[in-house]
Amino acid sequence: MAAEIVNQKDGLEPDVIDPAFALHRGGKMAVQATVPVRDADDLSLAYTPGVAKVCSAIAEQPELVDDYTWKSQVVAVVTDGSAVLGLGDIGPGASLPVMEGKAILFKQFGGVDAVPLALDTQDTDEIVATVQRLAPSFGGVNLEDISAPRCFEIEARLKEKLDIPVFHDDQHGTAIVTLAALRNAAKLSDRALGSLRAVISGAGAAGVAIAKILVEAGIGDVAVCDRKGVVSRDRGDLTQVKRDLAGFTNKGNRTGSLESVLEGADVFIGVSGGTVPEEAVARMAEDAFVFAMANPNPEIHPDVARKYASVVATGRSDYPNQINNVLAFPGVFAGALQVRATDITEGMKLAAAEALAAVVADELSADRVIPSPFDERVAPAVTSAVAAAARAEGVARR
Amino acid sequence: MAAEIVNQKDGLEPDVIDPAFALHRGGKMAVQATVPVRDADDLSLAYTPGVAKVCSAIAEQPELVDDYTWKSQVVAVVTDGSAVLGLGDIGPGASLPVMEGKAILFKQFGGVDAVPLALDTQDTDEIVATVQRLAPSFGGVNLEDISAPRCFEIEARLKEKLDIPVFHDDQHGTAIVTLAALRNAAKLSDRALGSLRAVISGAGAAGVAIAKILVEAGIGDVAVCDRKGVVSRDRGDLTQVKRDLAGFTNKGNRTGSLESVLEGADVFIGVSGGTVPEEAVARMAEDAFVFAMANPNPEIHPDVARKYASVVATGRSDYPNQINNVLAFPGVFAGALQVRATDITEGMKLAAAEALAAVVADELSADRVIPSPFDERVAPAVTSAVAAAARAEGVARR
Repeated sequence: MAAEIVNQKDGLEPDVIDPAFALHRGGKMAVQATVPVRDADDLSLAYTPGVAKVCSAIAEQPELVDDYTWKSQVVAVVTDGSAVLGLGDIGPGASLPVMEGKAILFKQFGGVDAVPLALDTQDTDEIVATVQRLAPSFGGVNLEDISAPRCFEIEARLKEKLDIPVFHDDQHGTAIVTLAALRNAAKLSDRALGSLRAVISGAGAAGVAIAKILVEAGIGDVAVCDRKGVVSRDRGDLTQVKRDLAGFTNKGNRTGSLESVLEGADVFIGVSGGTVPEEAVARMAEDAFVFAMANPNPEIHPDVARKYASVVATGRSDYPNQINNVLAFPGVFAGALQVRATDITEGMKLAAAEALAAVVADELSADRVIPSPFDERVAPAVTSAVAAAARAEGVARR
Repeated sequence: MAAEIVNQKDGLEPDVIDPAFALHRGGKMAVQATVPVRDADDLSLAYTPGVAKVCSAIAEQPELVDDYTWKSQVVAVVTDGSAVLGLGDIGPGASLPVMEGKAILFKQFGGVDAVPLALDTQDTDEIVATVQRLAPSFGGVNLEDISAPRCFEIEARLKEKLDIPVFHDDQHGTAIVTLAALRNAAKLSDRALGSLRAVISGAGAAGVAIAKILVEAGIGDVAVCDRKGVVSRDRGDLTQVKRDLAGFTNKGNRTGSLESVLEGADVFIGVSGGTVPEEAVARMAEDAFVFAMANPNPEIHPDVARKYASVVATGRSDYPNQINNVLAFPGVFAGALQVRATDITEGMKLAAAEALAAVVADELSADRVIPSPFDERVAPAVTSAVAAAARAEGVARR
């Protein structure tokens, strides 16, 4: 579509025609010095010869790198361009505007410096090796828009190898915000999490991570559906990731289509981009929650969902209850970096979801189970909760 | 030494004791957004859904990445920590303060954004592969403090593989500034470059690059000495890099020690960290130039050198004529990025040296053959000259 815009009007720059292009002209970010370099004295402290003392001190006591460089406050936003937004595999160059956008959201919402790194490889081993070699320069790694199932292996291997936090936002950011919204929806209708049966449509990065965090948070049962129906122990066509899913989801070992497992379910969570027919939503339990998060087209239109569900959320900013990752990742990293965490643990993610839910606990309504991305209470609340959880879980270095 | 400072006074943070540590606390740089993210409208342009159009346009027309991201204005400052300042192989973490310093000098002097990347590998193949994978996110690569001879192969392979400028500053930055100073020294004493015989002490990154650029610039003869004496075609102990050197330097095929080839020479250039006895300087030609650039201890003290030489330069800021790379690299990259050059060619380096020399052409004196790093005319002059040379050499993309 954009390419049409670009080609449509010969001789006119695309940013004359479209405000998104105008805004992107020249990029969205820059680097700035935080110390003065006005004269020879400044230079002799910030660069040679003064800098040599700092280098020698770090060579002697490696942990000093966190105090005397920006390492401990900068996150690498790493992608291979394989699963960018809804656009799919558009490659590293074309993914850069998203990575830059992510970087400025890190700064704006979490006060975290971030550097976009779109890699010219989609090979799992090469991505792991590359990020490993980059690790000395960064306090954390945010993996972004890397397609499933490679994203699972890449994250797992990097978490294993590195002593800095590694977080695949498409998985865990989405999972944290979803859990927060679900907590508040349950609270609003006075139901225990353990009483809820949830059905997730989509077994990619987001679906798998949401299933995990819901089970960890104590949701009664969670079933995950891919294009062939519900993931169950009986299916012979499962990848390793889905076999693992089958092991801890779908307690009743239901089989069949999404529509069939949705019957009587309390929660629908859509992260698939498919569609769900109105009749299937009508057959959910009373007081159901519908989180139809596909963008730009929710799995079921929120106006339709509202006819049957007591709480409706989407991924869109023009409807209430937007499940937006920006509610999580800035605070998650800000909290992890604050205490120089060596990892982002499950406990830290659960704490983030709880803190995020708590922000609107006193203002709950069906249209307000999750705060707005511009609610200034969000990032500080998530940051504190994640930092405290890191300490409690023994992964904080200070 | 710094480690002593750190350990010396228990309980006191090192930055209480030393202003260099105080300045480095928290690092020297940050990232900033250059577009607003104040509300949902801003977010919908800078991030989803607006960003998707920009991504699609780049997917369709890859060169648009230069217009609509920061790629074309950001340089990766890449090291493996193997040859940091005079400190040697201190590793990636300990090298970070220097790389950050470099990044802020890029910004301050050239208006170029730069990101410090200290790699956790010293393997040539791995460094090349890593930088290649990072290339989609950067407009240029500044290699820094990588030890010889690996630096030569790494630079050559990356220049071959990448379509963005690759520049090893320890080689070419030093070479450009040295040539500029030498041009002005020759001008001051009304001698043609072709009449000069130069001797370089040091056959590492800087020595090799200086030899090349001096020969390209038309210096009469150049001889390079390593610890075993002058590099000549007769020596059986030469590495490939030095065999190449022997092919285009030392026209008279002199053999013997540094001191012996220095006899009657017009120019001494020290990039070795060794020492040169006063008697050897005394035996140089009349009106000699002595550039004793080892830091912090010049090969011969400038006060001694002045007794015999008409022009004396060092690497130190507390003596006249400081040969400081910051005179070159910011403008070299600013010029290359301005025209989106695909390479930094020999012609661009020669043009940089000429422009740098020209800045003080009307103010020449024995103590002023090179401008001060804080001379505001420098970066614009180098930038324009490099951009023009890129166009002339056919490597400019605009």
